[in-house]
Amino acid sequence: MAITVVGSVAYDSIETPAGRRERCLGGAATYFSLAASFFTQVRVIAVVGEDFGAEQEAVFNTRSIDTRGIEHTAGKSFFWEGSYLENLNEAKTHNTELNVFAAFEPKIPETYRNSEFLFLANIDPILQRRVREQMPDVKLVAGDTMNYWIKDHRAALLEVLKGLDVLLINETETKMLAGNNNLVQAARAVLALGPKALVVKHGEYGATLFQESSPKSKGAELFRAPALPLEEVIDPTGAGDSFAGGFFGYLASQPTLTPAAYRQAMFYGSVMGSFACERFGTERLQQLSRKEIDDRFTLFRELTHLD
Amino acid sequence: MAITVVGSVAYDSIETPAGRRERCLGGAATYFSLAASFFTQVRVIAVVGEDFGAEQEAVFNTRSIDTRGIEHTAGKSFFWEGSYLENLNEAKTHNTELNVFAAFEPKIPETYRNSEFLFLANIDPILQRRVREQMPDVKLVAGDTMNYWIKDHRAALLEVLKGLDVLLINETETKMLAGNNNLVQAARAVLALGPKALVVKHGEYGATLFQESSPKSKGAELFRAPALPLEEVIDPTGAGDSFAGGFFGYLASQPTLTPAAYRQAMFYGSVMGSFACERFGTERLQQLSRKEIDDRFTLFRELTHLD
Repeated sequence: MAITVVGSVAYDSIETPAGRRERCLGGAATYFSLAASFFTQVRVIAVVGEDFGAEQEAVFNTRSIDTRGIEHTAGKSFFWEGSYLENLNEAKTHNTELNVFAAFEPKIPETYRNSEFLFLANIDPILQRRVREQMPDVKLVAGDTMNYWIKDHRAALLEVLKGLDVLLINETETKMLAGNNNLVQAARAVLALGPKALVVKHGEYGATLFQESSPKSKGAELFRAPALPLEEVIDPTGAGDSFAGGFFGYLASQPTLTPAAYRQAMFYGSVMGSFACERFGTERLQQLSRKEIDDRFTLFRELTHLD
Repeated sequence: MAITVVGSVAYDSIETPAGRRERCLGGAATYFSLAASFFTQVRVIAVVGEDFGAEQEAVFNTRSIDTRGIEHTAGKSFFWEGSYLENLNEAKTHNTELNVFAAFEPKIPETYRNSEFLFLANIDPILQRRVREQMPDVKLVAGDTMNYWIKDHRAALLEVLKGLDVLLINETETKMLAGNNNLVQAARAVLALGPKALVVKHGEYGATLFQESSPKSKGAELFRAPALPLEEVIDPTGAGDSFAGGFFGYLASQPTLTPAAYRQAMFYGSVMGSFACERFGTERLQQLSRKEIDDRFTLFRELTHLD
């Protein structure tokens, strides 16, 4: 089933201990789409400037990602510059230029409206809500957010959370959103805000799925997927968005959303996140094969399963 | 098969966000023995002062732990005072009094000499080596160490590592010992120092087992056990030693040391570490049942297994 994703398509200048790249293709919607495209049809809603051309378009088209919802407008695309020189787990932002993103008004193409899955990548919660309201009939809606919205746009964010099936955020954001430093207590508090499920990303330690506990599914409300310890992390940019793409893309490919499907989705999320770190920007996701994905899935199983 | 463990039996004064305890029974050998005693016969080598009486002795005896190797001498027992007020993952040491431990000369009772498993808890590597040399015929020897020995007693520690089958240390210690901030590279460097296997403890994120890779066991050289996200961590003191006790105790209870046995041992280590955190000091380990251990093992499996 098709996923519509709304979020940023951008240029990133990135410095890590492995080197530096200037203005490579990035943005949450880009990483998400590429990762999810290995599992299902993906349709993007975003805005780009005049610096986004045929070469960038081809990155999406090669993976059969629908770009009819990417609006082209006068000006420059969203730009982010950051580094991970001291800590590979946390980016240091040097520069953010919203550019055409500052006046972004998401428009949903008619051909996207039958999408059964909706992903609200990390953007202004007011925009997330507007897109959500225009697609009332989706089967499953998931979203991401970040510390900036949690701290300074809480009211708008809380409105978005009420309408989410799955929220995917990192551990620091979970604790910040809940105002609680204990992960289990914080997760429970976040679930009380609306999401039926919460995926907490722990970076190199994997991710934990918290679900509303039902009396019937004792023990099934918690699931932990590992991350692969990597010999060399080239660039962690987009790992979280790639996790979300693998997770949501796999769910969208399933006939029914069983607890087992959610567990598999957690593993596929971790798999896609691990690939994203292996090269700069989207380089690895662009050159990936489904066989490599499934081989790594098997490796993740061997890494964690008793038999 | 019986385990002999050499290490500290001590008193700890501990402060955590959950409260404070004065002079409760602690020490690496104490936590290790209690945890391992649920799986196999344990024999302790340590030294205590005149403040160690019948009440403390009973903690060991209730779990059928052999204390004939605990030497009683004039003076006070080893004492440690620490807190976890800002960070539950890292103790802040306020006071360490070696007391009778300063002149500790481990003596191995004749009745211990047929032990097939030997655990060298975190003590001066010179003493670890001395004990190791007195028990040349053990089937498996594992050990622990800490930042102090890694930094300031490296030569002595390297001698110990040469004779170890399994080294169990935390992630920071692994990176410090290898002088490398990448976990996979650091683990490989540590294995090159002698240990056939390395267990890296990640605190609340579980632990990773690295083994010398053999051409036959593709993929089997890496295994990750989860930790249970806890609603409330009362006191993390001794969690690492309890992990070691569960891990090594389970191995010692197995007829053959297969790769599957190592994976199960990782889970039992994580299980015992999680129990240790639930109350102050050794309180939880003292009141535990084998059924509770196996129930939590099942929970850990459900937490991480796809089916």
